[in-house]
Amino acid sequence: MERIITSLQNNLIKEAVKLKQKKYRNLNSLFLVEGHHLVNEALTAGFLRQIFYLDTLDFPFNNAFQVSESVMKKLTEVNSPQGIIGVCDKPEKMVLSDKIILLDNVQDPGNIGTLIRSAAAWGFDTIIADNSVDFYNEKVIRSSQGAIFKVSLINQSIVDFIYNNQDYQLFATDLLSKKELKDLNLDYNKIGIILGNEGTGISKEVLNLVPNKFKIKMKNMESLNVGVAGSVIMYEIFKRSDY
Amino acid sequence: MERIITSLQNNLIKEAVKLKQKKYRNLNSLFLVEGHHLVNEALTAGFLRQIFYLDTLDFPFNNAFQVSESVMKKLTEVNSPQGIIGVCDKPEKMVLSDKIILLDNVQDPGNIGTLIRSAAAWGFDTIIADNSVDFYNEKVIRSSQGAIFKVSLINQSIVDFIYNNQDYQLFATDLLSKKELKDLNLDYNKIGIILGNEGTGISKEVLNLVPNKFKIKMKNMESLNVGVAGSVIMYEIFKRSDY
Repeated sequence: MERIITSLQNNLIKEAVKLKQKKYRNLNSLFLVEGHHLVNEALTAGFLRQIFYLDTLDFPFNNAFQVSESVMKKLTEVNSPQGIIGVCDKPEKMVLSDKIILLDNVQDPGNIGTLIRSAAAWGFDTIIADNSVDFYNEKVIRSSQGAIFKVSLINQSIVDFIYNNQDYQLFATDLLSKKELKDLNLDYNKIGIILGNEGTGISKEVLNLVPNKFKIKMKNMESLNVGVAGSVIMYEIFKRSDY
Repeated sequence: MERIITSLQNNLIKEAVKLKQKKYRNLNSLFLVEGHHLVNEALTAGFLRQIFYLDTLDFPFNNAFQVSESVMKKLTEVNSPQGIIGVCDKPEKMVLSDKIILLDNVQDPGNIGTLIRSAAAWGFDTIIADNSVDFYNEKVIRSSQGAIFKVSLINQSIVDFIYNNQDYQLFATDLLSKKELKDLNLDYNKIGIILGNEGTGISKEVLNLVPNKFKIKMKNMESLNVGVAGSVIMYEIFKRSDY
């Protein structure tokens, strides 16, 4: 296949462009990654199905198609495209790791991406999202820095999870709690950390089902960025269990 | 002043719109904040100079101007404006607190905003930026959640800072270091944490001047988001000195 795809009406291009929308990502169980780093991570992880590239491709890949600038412009979701985009299979592993993060209505893609990256860093190998931004949103993928390929990403109701997994010790951040992170007993085999919406926190329904509520002590602010709060908690648990 | 400003040629509007650009923010020592929460924080902190609002203003303020929808659209920098924008004086306090954060070429506005928020939360009351995104960029302000009014924000060369402030014990993140955060002696009165660029880290020139290099231990990733890394370090220092 040495021909360059120049037509926006090309079927491969039309199908790939559709994956910018969550609806089609769900329908086809596919998603896009952009840039050398992420395409490489997808390749290594075994999820890469197709590549579209602008100039040259510096590694062999069967299903790679050179495209014109106008086609790349149609495919890209960033202002300064790197000229390489991959179509990937959604990872289908549904493993529940011993340490998990549960997201209740988290809406900022950058926050979710950052949390996935921190989760991979500190051994929280499953993330359950309820009513939150799509894991395969372009900004989530970008800010995860490839960690989406290292963590099980599951969409599920948190209430259902709680009823079906009573062996997990659950913790939830709650600005009104008097208990502090540093005083928590975190020595459990199976542990779940619930994080809530950027503006309104964790829903009452979920909060009522969680035995351990706590806050992170602060001096001069009312709340933290949810990506920061979650990461500080994960590091604390990782640190205590690792040494 | 009961008249609604409807003209984009109105001088007040033209001057305010200019503040979307860093050049004019620097020239006039003014910047814009948007939305009820941030306007309120600016008012409380004593930096609010002018308000432009769409419908009603639910508190008394001398220098408030009602504007038409088209004028608000011209002023706003977000997709879903809340209908209230304030012009603020840049805080001019140049206090060096005992605990400070130094940013070496940090480029993502969301990362800087998050770091300002965490710094206010954990008592790092001065942030020095070198070759980084403008503190008064709209996205920085928004993600700081008002913390820009609580922390001294200073633009300065980090190399100059190091030569002029030898009483500060400086620490820098370095992925190649063998020393870990948890093993650091952090018990100093004056402490500075240096954080680097999202892609390339801290510049060699700065790194060579810093006595204490360390990494944050990770399991399954090569690096962390810089906002997360900085926040985890600040919390660690806050926690150890607070109790």
